[in-house]
Amino acid sequence: MLRLGPLAAAGRLLPSGPRLGPPCPAGDRVSLSWSWPPPPLRPVGDRGLLSRQVRATAGSAGGGGRGAALKTPKGTRDHPPAHVVLRDRLLAAVVACFKRHGAAAIDTPVLELRETLTGKYGEDAKLIYELQDQGGELLALRYDLTVPFARYLAMNKITKMKRYHIAKVYRRDNPATTRGRYREFYQCDFDIAGQFDPMIPDAECLKIVHEILSDLQLGDFLIKVNDRRILNAVFAVCGIPESKFITTCSTVDKLDKMPWEEVRSEMVGEKGLSPEAADHIGEYVQLHGGLDLIERLLQDPKLSQNKLAKEGLGDMKLLFEYLTLFGITGKISFDLSLARGLDYYTGVIFEAVLLQQENDHVEEPVSVGSVAGGGRYDGLVGMFDPKGRKVPCVGVSIGIERIFSILEQRVKASGDKVRTTETQVLVATPQKHLLAARLKLISELWDAGIKAEMLYKKDPKLLKQLQYCEDMGIPLAAIVGEQELTDGVIKLRDVATREEVDIPREKLLHEIRRRLEP
Amino acid sequence: MLRLGPLAAAGRLLPSGPRLGPPCPAGDRVSLSWSWPPPPLRPVGDRGLLSRQVRATAGSAGGGGRGAALKTPKGTRDHPPAHVVLRDRLLAAVVACFKRHGAAAIDTPVLELRETLTGKYGEDAKLIYELQDQGGELLALRYDLTVPFARYLAMNKITKMKRYHIAKVYRRDNPATTRGRYREFYQCDFDIAGQFDPMIPDAECLKIVHEILSDLQLGDFLIKVNDRRILNAVFAVCGIPESKFITTCSTVDKLDKMPWEEVRSEMVGEKGLSPEAADHIGEYVQLHGGLDLIERLLQDPKLSQNKLAKEGLGDMKLLFEYLTLFGITGKISFDLSLARGLDYYTGVIFEAVLLQQENDHVEEPVSVGSVAGGGRYDGLVGMFDPKGRKVPCVGVSIGIERIFSILEQRVKASGDKVRTTETQVLVATPQKHLLAARLKLISELWDAGIKAEMLYKKDPKLLKQLQYCEDMGIPLAAIVGEQELTDGVIKLRDVATREEVDIPREKLLHEIRRRLEP
Repeated sequence: MLRLGPLAAAGRLLPSGPRLGPPCPAGDRVSLSWSWPPPPLRPVGDRGLLSRQVRATAGSAGGGGRGAALKTPKGTRDHPPAHVVLRDRLLAAVVACFKRHGAAAIDTPVLELRETLTGKYGEDAKLIYELQDQGGELLALRYDLTVPFARYLAMNKITKMKRYHIAKVYRRDNPATTRGRYREFYQCDFDIAGQFDPMIPDAECLKIVHEILSDLQLGDFLIKVNDRRILNAVFAVCGIPESKFITTCSTVDKLDKMPWEEVRSEMVGEKGLSPEAADHIGEYVQLHGGLDLIERLLQDPKLSQNKLAKEGLGDMKLLFEYLTLFGITGKISFDLSLARGLDYYTGVIFEAVLLQQENDHVEEPVSVGSVAGGGRYDGLVGMFDPKGRKVPCVGVSIGIERIFSILEQRVKASGDKVRTTETQVLVATPQKHLLAARLKLISELWDAGIKAEMLYKKDPKLLKQLQYCEDMGIPLAAIVGEQELTDGVIKLRDVATREEVDIPREKLLHEIRRRLEP
Repeated sequence: MLRLGPLAAAGRLLPSGPRLGPPCPAGDRVSLSWSWPPPPLRPVGDRGLLSRQVRATAGSAGGGGRGAALKTPKGTRDHPPAHVVLRDRLLAAVVACFKRHGAAAIDTPVLELRETLTGKYGEDAKLIYELQDQGGELLALRYDLTVPFARYLAMNKITKMKRYHIAKVYRRDNPATTRGRYREFYQCDFDIAGQFDPMIPDAECLKIVHEILSDLQLGDFLIKVNDRRILNAVFAVCGIPESKFITTCSTVDKLDKMPWEEVRSEMVGEKGLSPEAADHIGEYVQLHGGLDLIERLLQDPKLSQNKLAKEGLGDMKLLFEYLTLFGITGKISFDLSLARGLDYYTGVIFEAVLLQQENDHVEEPVSVGSVAGGGRYDGLVGMFDPKGRKVPCVGVSIGIERIFSILEQRVKASGDKVRTTETQVLVATPQKHLLAARLKLISELWDAGIKAEMLYKKDPKLLKQLQYCEDMGIPLAAIVGEQELTDGVIKLRDVATREEVDIPREKLLHEIRRRLEP
């Protein structure tokens, strides 16, 4: 499904920097500018000026500092140019998908009132960063993009909206930076708010996860789906009191990381469930399947008597019908162990995980856990509305940092380098005392929209200038010397072939543009 | 110098969303997708689903909330889709310029260690947001992008780098939101670090300001230039003790907002300067001009005896020579009243202001103050380096929020609407019981990379669906009904002309792409 960008496919220098598509009138499917495994890129050396590529490590110390510790805060990191280029391409692919589905972008402040975040995250509330009270409001850093979205909807009395939001969120979590877990990280959220016919927006969210993970070619994946109503019904028929639903949920949620026996003992030990109830739950939450499983549970003597279960299973059946029409059920699993930690979910929940591949060509495979997750939260907006009016919502969040960790690892393994600048022409000179001529020429190029650099020296050596082109992957050098000034020409050098041609000054822009055409 | 994007020029619907240029091989000068004054856009109605455009106000209350205040923190604001579209276009123009000058992008955390920010901002340090000590490091929100850049260079031992960074910064300032001043706001920084021949990178920074302000067509502007060494020399020859240089600087800096008499009385009253010294300073700081003024000051009996003054004036002369070669001295003024508040400047400083225009077509002109500023800071990196090694730097920051306020005001005045989604096709149906057909069709379109939407209803009315196209500016409707299913065709409707044609199913993608071609 992925089409390689023309440059990547041809194995030429990668264009760099943040690039979100042009108004794409013909609407080709996302053209990513990198391929996987990477094409044979022309490596860019790192000897030259400005080309040093830094591998930043999370919160890494750079050695003392005069009194001040020279580091970023724990669990955070700097992103050097090669990171930013890769990350921006990743984000561009995600944004392209969100736009393909008709979403509009919003942005909200990194700071929220503390009370906005209070009571939304259950046990995780302790991970919220709080600001000092400096004689004003009590503030905190946003923990996700979902609660701010709900606040935004309620504050502006919006009852229907399809929006995406890509921004950093903050969690005082125990960072596991090697697994792509940071305290400051990007979330990429797509949400549909509004009262609609059941499961149509929910199915679209799953389609979006499927599209993005397919586009990024991350290998095989699985999207687990469940419903909070089904989980609650299971707890109810197993005799768990309603007051223990949420805490039981968060224990069940650990089934993907620990075996059933451990989960069971946490239920009985820490959460105070009876061994019988725990065993009973175990019979259900270890089930997973597709439409067949849904049908079977609809016939289950206990669940079929439970109103919540019937609603949840009925909707799940509808969802699977829609997913069949989308042709994506092959990667979807109805999994009763999926619980998701957050308090605010009320219906369908889902989570995508990458599957370890047998023939994985990466030397040290990264374990990354879930790479996308989401669900329905019909009550959250109502928590903000003065009159408690509900706006049903369903949404998905793409775990871009974890995906980035995988891609970064692969780039590293490939040994290739990413070009971090886009300079097209170096303005150079072979003799001394020609700074004025260079400044005049480069100014003309900039004014014509050509990406140009020159060395910041009065009298640089020609060899150094040409070396800089090679190091930085600059394709052309525009050389102005005494002879060229006399003749009214510029010597245009193709850095790769080393060919040089004199171009009349008045034809220079035209010739440069012609040569830079793809 | 500005070329209108083809869509804007033709007065058609504006493409929306964040769009940073493609790898621009032919290197045309920035094509902004909006023009000034705005072309006669086709307005997009706001009656339809999802199309409500919200005017967010800074920290505005949305009315109570169930216990919780429904607002954003003081001095911050939400950005609804129309904002984000406009802002992203603005940022795209700035990024295009930074890339044209060969810069690479970096990103640093919003959080920094408090000690990283300590001692860098002089009197303004009280405006730094501090986080609660939650049993770990003492953290603060970044106040600008310059100090984190210096920290980054020192930490990674980088001695040469040309980078840009576009990100939010935080200042507990008294917000003047009508003038585009917020507590959370974007900065767009371009900096050149490294030991180079004098004034070449400095001149490039001024060229960049000139290019961006010209590209954005904000009206006439002026870039004021001065040098901290010249200012210090002026203070010295006027008999001010060195301990009072910085505080005198910040008083002089107010000359653009208050008359000399008031500045003088602050110097004598608050800052404790003698009336004679203040008058003496007044003779200098009210001067402004070009090369002629530089020559005159080089002959000044007192300044010509001062080492700092000779250095500063000599460099200023060189700078003006380079700016002459760039052809931009027409908008540059050597202005001895320019001081800039920040502690860390050591050489050239500059600030761009928009000039009020006589024939301004805006009804309520916004007073925005400076829209760009910067200067040389040769000592900052050394403050972080364990051995105090210096990395000379010069940089510029574009005040994007203020520029945005102006553009926003103009869009408002024009009464035009910005399209906030890019949907190309609405998948519709004229009869009931055809949800499955719609889901199948829209899935095909998404998989082919076409931006498509459908209403989230099982059986929507055709009129509602077509109305949605009109409201949202969606150019095409792909209609699947019973007859179309039988005939193996899709009815393709041109929303603007209302023409409908049956297209064989297998030719649909081709036909849609053909029609969407520019």
